[in-house]
Amino acid sequence: MVKNNSKKIKAAIAGSSGYTGLELLKLLAVHPHAETAIAVSSTYGGISLCNAFPSFYAIYSGSEDKNDQPVFTSYEGLSPESFNSIDVVFTCLPATESMEFVRKYLGSFKGVIIDIGSDFRLNDPQDYLLWYGKKHALPDLLGDFVYGLPELNEDKIKSSKMIANPGCYPTSVLLALAPLFLCKNFKISEINIDTKSGVSGAGKKLKEQYLFSSLNENFYAYSPLMHRHTAEIEQELSKLAGEQVKICFTPHLLPLDRGIFSSIYCKVELKYNNLPDTVGKADRRQDIAGEASDSLFNAIEEKLNNVFSSFYKNSAFVKFIGNNIPGIKDVAGTNMCFIGFSFDYRTGILKIFSVLDNLLKGAAGQAVQNMNIVFGYDQKEGLH
Amino acid sequence: MVKNNSKKIKAAIAGSSGYTGLELLKLLAVHPHAETAIAVSSTYGGISLCNAFPSFYAIYSGSEDKNDQPVFTSYEGLSPESFNSIDVVFTCLPATESMEFVRKYLGSFKGVIIDIGSDFRLNDPQDYLLWYGKKHALPDLLGDFVYGLPELNEDKIKSSKMIANPGCYPTSVLLALAPLFLCKNFKISEINIDTKSGVSGAGKKLKEQYLFSSLNENFYAYSPLMHRHTAEIEQELSKLAGEQVKICFTPHLLPLDRGIFSSIYCKVELKYNNLPDTVGKADRRQDIAGEASDSLFNAIEEKLNNVFSSFYKNSAFVKFIGNNIPGIKDVAGTNMCFIGFSFDYRTGILKIFSVLDNLLKGAAGQAVQNMNIVFGYDQKEGLH
Amino acid sequence: MVKNNSKKIKAAIAGSSGYTGLELLKLLAVHPHAETAIAVSSTYGGISLCNAFPSFYAIYSGSEDKNDQPVFTSYEGLSPESFNSIDVVFTCLPATESMEFVRKYLGSFKGVIIDIGSDFRLNDPQDYLLWYGKKHALPDLLGDFVYGLPELNEDKIKSSKMIANPGCYPTSVLLALAPLFLCKNFKISEINIDTKSGVSGAGKKLKEQYLFSSLNENFYAYSPLMHRHTAEIEQELSKLAGEQVKICFTPHLLPLDRGIFSSIYCKVELKYNNLPDTVGKADRRQDIAGEASDSLFNAIEEKLNNVFSSFYKNSAFVKFIGNNIPGIKDVAGTNMCFIGFSFDYRTGILKIFSVLDNLLKGAAGQAVQNMNIVFGYDQKEGLH
Amino acid sequence: MVKNNSKKIKAAIAGSSGYTGLELLKLLAVHPHAETAIAVSSTYGGISLCNAFPSFYAIYSGSEDKNDQPVFTSYEGLSPESFNSIDVVFTCLPATESMEFVRKYLGSFKGVIIDIGSDFRLNDPQDYLLWYGKKHALPDLLGDFVYGLPELNEDKIKSSKMIANPGCYPTSVLLALAPLFLCKNFKISEINIDTKSGVSGAGKKLKEQYLFSSLNENFYAYSPLMHRHTAEIEQELSKLAGEQVKICFTPHLLPLDRGIFSSIYCKVELKYNNLPDTVGKADRRQDIAGEASDSLFNAIEEKLNNVFSSFYKNSAFVKFIGNNIPGIKDVAGTNMCFIGFSFDYRTGILKIFSVLDNLLKGAAGQAVQNMNIVFGYDQKEGLH
Repeated sequence: MVKNNSKKIKAAIAGSSGYTGLELLKLLAVHPHAETAIAVSSTYGGISLCNAFPSFYAIYSGSEDKNDQPVFTSYEGLSPESFNSIDVVFTCLPATESMEFVRKYLGSFKGVIIDIGSDFRLNDPQDYLLWYGKKHALPDLLGDFVYGLPELNEDKIKSSKMIANPGCYPTSVLLALAPLFLCKNFKISEINIDTKSGVSGAGKKLKEQYLFSSLNENFYAYSPLMHRHTAEIEQELSKLAGEQVKICFTPHLLPLDRGIFSSIYCKVELKYNNLPDTVGKADRRQDIAGEASDSLFNAIEEKLNNVFSSFYKNSAFVKFIGNNIPGIKDVAGTNMCFIGFSFDYRTGILKIFSVLDNLLKGAAGQAVQNMNIVFGYDQKEGLH
Repeated sequence: MVKNNSKKIKAAIAGSSGYTGLELLKLLAVHPHAETAIAVSSTYGGISLCNAFPSFYAIYSGSEDKNDQPVFTSYEGLSPESFNSIDVVFTCLPATESMEFVRKYLGSFKGVIIDIGSDFRLNDPQDYLLWYGKKHALPDLLGDFVYGLPELNEDKIKSSKMIANPGCYPTSVLLALAPLFLCKNFKISEINIDTKSGVSGAGKKLKEQYLFSSLNENFYAYSPLMHRHTAEIEQELSKLAGEQVKICFTPHLLPLDRGIFSSIYCKVELKYNNLPDTVGKADRRQDIAGEASDSLFNAIEEKLNNVFSSFYKNSAFVKFIGNNIPGIKDVAGTNMCFIGFSFDYRTGILKIFSVLDNLLKGAAGQAVQNMNIVFGYDQKEGLH
Repeated sequence: MVKNNSKKIKAAIAGSSGYTGLELLKLLAVHPHAETAIAVSSTYGGISLCNAFPSFYAIYSGSEDKNDQPVFTSYEGLSPESFNSIDVVFTCLPATESMEFVRKYLGSFKGVIIDIGSDFRLNDPQDYLLWYGKKHALPDLLGDFVYGLPELNEDKIKSSKMIANPGCYPTSVLLALAPLFLCKNFKISEINIDTKSGVSGAGKKLKEQYLFSSLNENFYAYSPLMHRHTAEIEQELSKLAGEQVKICFTPHLLPLDRGIFSSIYCKVELKYNNLPDTVGKADRRQDIAGEASDSLFNAIEEKLNNVFSSFYKNSAFVKFIGNNIPGIKDVAGTNMCFIGFSFDYRTGILKIFSVLDNLLKGAAGQAVQNMNIVFGYDQKEGLH
Repeated sequence: MVKNNSKKIKAAIAGSSGYTGLELLKLLAVHPHAETAIAVSSTYGGISLCNAFPSFYAIYSGSEDKNDQPVFTSYEGLSPESFNSIDVVFTCLPATESMEFVRKYLGSFKGVIIDIGSDFRLNDPQDYLLWYGKKHALPDLLGDFVYGLPELNEDKIKSSKMIANPGCYPTSVLLALAPLFLCKNFKISEINIDTKSGVSGAGKKLKEQYLFSSLNENFYAYSPLMHRHTAEIEQELSKLAGEQVKICFTPHLLPLDRGIFSSIYCKVELKYNNLPDTVGKADRRQDIAGEASDSLFNAIEEKLNNVFSSFYKNSAFVKFIGNNIPGIKDVAGTNMCFIGFSFDYRTGILKIFSVLDNLLKGAAGQAVQNMNIVFGYDQKEGLH
């Protein structure tokens, strides 16, 4: 845990005018123990937050002194020394840009780095080359970064100064699968993830495909092969499983602002319960006929319920809702992840449904959660 | 093929003021060879179409004689004789209501029945009881109804007077999987269907969950176990496969008006090509290293391309787009189904993406297509 | 009326890959008496319509010969001679580009020009300079262009070869106000137009403000001063009134694909009915007290009803719906304009509500309507 | 100001499961000085907030003791004594129900009543009868209720125990017009208000017109005559003006969740500046010719800027943005109201654009603001 003697954590944000950066700015603006000292933006340098994005008036209006209103900092004049009095730097930059920022500005930085980009999530530089198509600029640092999923790695995060904030899809998937892998009762196979994200997940890109008229009333899959989050999910699941895990991963774009809904399918079998080989083959007609293997399925259902319930019992941000199905609107605007499941006894397929807000629990909210942990505050501070 | 000596096919529609019924009314209003003679509605009986739904003015405005404007017929006064001069009856009624309508009014009807409801799709009354929770009212008729998917059953449809119009989800799924099953080269297994529908697919129901504020900016799965379309898809796939096929099926609700996007996952293997057992296990790193089994995957990809291309080469309403990904907006408002695919060589999983407009190719449009076939017209008549 | 001896009208479209151009391509593709021979696009030259915009497969799929599929033409190689065998050229180009296209390519063109851009709507080159900020390139042609609003100018259109297709907002406003000005019974003043358009009205522009995440769940006014359509509306209303008419005009952007809703407010007084000066001041409390001027208001309401009803009685594309309020969804996807009104007896303000589809009756649909008139076809051909 | 010696203000909410009630529940749940003790709901009595509306888990998850989770109270068993230890009652009930609730339960209540319904806004029971169509149940109380618009009536609110929380539309309109009326420099006339609201403004009603498919991609006006908010706006403007003010008011329904955009038009003239009578008649062509009355318009613009800027300089929740145009998304999810203006020198019409979140500044947020004032807290407490 980082010592912070000053009154408030002083934060810097690189890439602060993207969707995630703006969300982070807002979270920090109302955080009781932190404040943004530097908001770097290549587009809005020198412009006040309120002028660039009027929604900030909700935070900064009513202050009599205009000089109180924070202003974006441009790259011009930025130097490693700019971060001398900074406690934590958040990098919200596109793939391959975070590592360049760290190399250029944070070589001798003594504080905490939380990368909300994707450059420090993969542990193996070879994997980075394979999935990101570029040689990693700082391969030696990869081992120092902790994968910042607090529900799994809280202790490591606590004692680290370099946090790789997880991707939005991986967060929704890993929170849904981790309890199954950590509990040793289940054999999990054939993991197939069909996930859907609101448009803010794609970032602010000026392409015809992201125009309102292109996306409104539309829906489609994208990157059906080799989406980069595949690697991240496989890496973390493999750690949990203690063996190589492979997944099939397919993201889709939803015509709404924010939120991820992940439908996660897998074959699940009880390892130690002597399930006869009819499991996964019974159908409801048999049930109706009164013969069947209901009790076996009930056993699986019950165990699933127990595993998830106990795993997330005291979790601040993950809510297990049993056989209910979560909706994106349940969590949009919050740092929550909701998880529900259905066990399809006809096929033996477990369906787990996981929702979160891609800009909060999937990005800026989780980053603040990590900051809270590192600096010794309650995880929920500033995240109500 | 039905003989039709009169100038225009005279159609009756039961359930004509639901989303599907209205769509059918509009299609028939501009059809060169058909016209609606009776539009039964329990809600709007006695009211003109234009008064009830002003969008009909686009069709009926400008006619000098107000009496030209069609009027909804109520159930009051309706009798079997009402259908004496009718050539085709479309039943757009909720589950279990179509069979009651047929029993009550069409016992001695000599014309064509096209059920856009779901009562005559399952061949086995036991299955109907299992999936619909009610004893079938007319079990003896089940054998007479042809499953009206023209791309598979055109010949049977041509010579039938009872057509069970397929469900919206089954249409999107069966068109995507049929070529694989009919071609004998592939071994298909582990079929997992994650499908998403616009809100009109749920029908016009006054429940809080269907209010604008409930669905807008929201997304979720529903009926994750035992959705009725599962049975219909399994029945038809099993016919194609010549053996019992089981699927995992999960529908979701999209915050848009119309359109279905089905993501269909399955394990696909070439039966006769002596694929070594590395298939499905290779990863791209190996490829990069230049070792790998590229040619085998290319063989599968090429065969998939060939199978779909040739199957749909001359199809009026199904367009195979290879490795492109279709979007709902490509087909909304049309009777088209677009199909694209990606073969995930890392996992051996084939991903097929299928889109259609649930009210057209998924319901009313397909019904008109079936009518065209039965009455000997070009399938495309009235469906541009 | 233009003579057309060949089987089908041969059309060319400049700017065919914008929202309006695409809509026009689709209309002409199903038009019984016209076909697109040249579809000029600066972006998609050489690419087939289907490849560039897969929704065209709905029209062109199933044709066995791939060469049947139309292809966009680039500007490269385009010359005045390219249009030698063309019967009608539609220019769907941004402000100031239509006149350049006409000057460059159509100097000796013998066919019909229908400008769906805005360069030939204002009659006075001084007005063009004032509102468009650029000197007009072809001021001498301004007098030759007819303002193509068929409900007002059908006869002039019939005998013209140069049509200035009206703007989307002006169409919705002029259709709503013309009957009042043409009927000599009313004194109209204080015209205030608050109008709202779907996003396609803004065209396909790659700006942050048109991204999905910028517009979804958002709404705002734009160009509150000097929007160019103001000039067009004032010019045409002044012609109808026989005197200079001035309006207050404020457009807004709606988070939906297509449609315009114009709320048109004006003070309306009966000229010849000796309304006492209490008119416009009475309030309902007086009415309840039984004193009031109900009969006078009833007289105005009745006259308004009569004026609109008789004016649009046989109109193919304008439907007057009395005191009902039209909605955008009533007309989206059609060439209709719906008009309803409320007379606010408390204030003497008449509220007219006018809706249309900005891409159809507001652009491409009206252009086809004009083409039908010029070439002697029924106005409704190809516009069902 | 109410004395509150206990640690936290104890609140009761009647109608707590409607859109406004839920918003209020959430605000109070994170308010540092208040808590909900009773959440009355006719629908969800006995059910926990989290079970009825899972989004409450974001607030209540992680608490170890399930009994901590608040539960809706049914009307059964509710009595005047239930409110004995309550400090403030919020009534979020439909028109005519708030007064019945107050009569039945709060006759001897000693605390503060904040009615978010509409029963105590009109001062004159005759007006209530006229606009709400029902005799007022508690006419004697009307004089005791203060109109709770803090930006105008802070002092009165401070010393009152009965607050009539303003309507959503009136809040947006009054904040935009009040500075003009309070400043004595302007003559304001011909006020015409075209306002647009997100769907949550209509409340949770199970009618076909509020279904997703009815509203999505749609837009229309409603209640164009005698919308009840007209009376409320006229009453408050008349107080400010010191004379009877009449307005023309037309609400519209926007296809989005939350937010109001009011376009407010009025004729504005400077009273004491000797504007020559060309004012309001000049047009830009004259300006270009260099003749004109620019300076006069500049004088009006400058004065408008000054009046609004100074009026809202220190306002916590109203932000004047000059000639910029606010958007709904700038304020959605906040308690802010943004106001911008354009002065149309061609017509002399002032256009004021005012946006707010109808559930926050237009309802629950403003109610909390009022509570803060009454109980002596900073207005911003709990409203960041």
